[in-house]
Amino acid sequence: MYQATIIITLRTSILDVQGKAVEHGIHSLGMTTVSNVRIGKQVQLEIDAHSDEDAARITDEACRKILANSVMEDYSYTVAKV
Amino acid sequence: MYQATIIITLRTSILDVQGKAVEHGIHSLGMTTVSNVRIGKQVQLEIDAHSDEDAARITDEACRKILANSVMEDYSYTVAKV
Repeated sequence: MYQATIIITLRTSILDVQGKAVEHGIHSLGMTTVSNVRIGKQVQLEIDAHSDEDAARITDEACRKILANSVMEDYSYTVAKV
Repeated sequence: MYQATIIITLRTSILDVQGKAVEHGIHSLGMTTVSNVRIGKQVQLEIDAHSDEDAARITDEACRKILANSVMEDYSYTVAKV
């Protein structure tokens, strides 16, 4: 069994409106030294695979086909045997 | 300047309905070896702080006060000088 941890982030060229809203909230609470807030997704999943390569291949396929929007988002992942 | 990377995850005791929906979608695409999908948030922010401790203190304050729901979510973070 393998555990994959995927991080999906909005491309830096795209305005992160959710991040801007959170930044505004943080400033409202007095933490004015915080800037450039960007919000992404973390996906954890388990894969019943025979090898590291097999688990990585399935993780990449899931990212490309359903998890990430390749037009607006970048993704990275790590796969570990558990 | 410091960069903080925060991971916010739903507590394992709480049903992750978004993760279940994504898992169903992944299975529909033929990747039936994937299980236990859980979805969290990743927040990146920059902090104008004088020390590692100061940056970590502000990050923790942001997590407690606005980013994480302490009833349902756990958070962890790393802080690095940039």
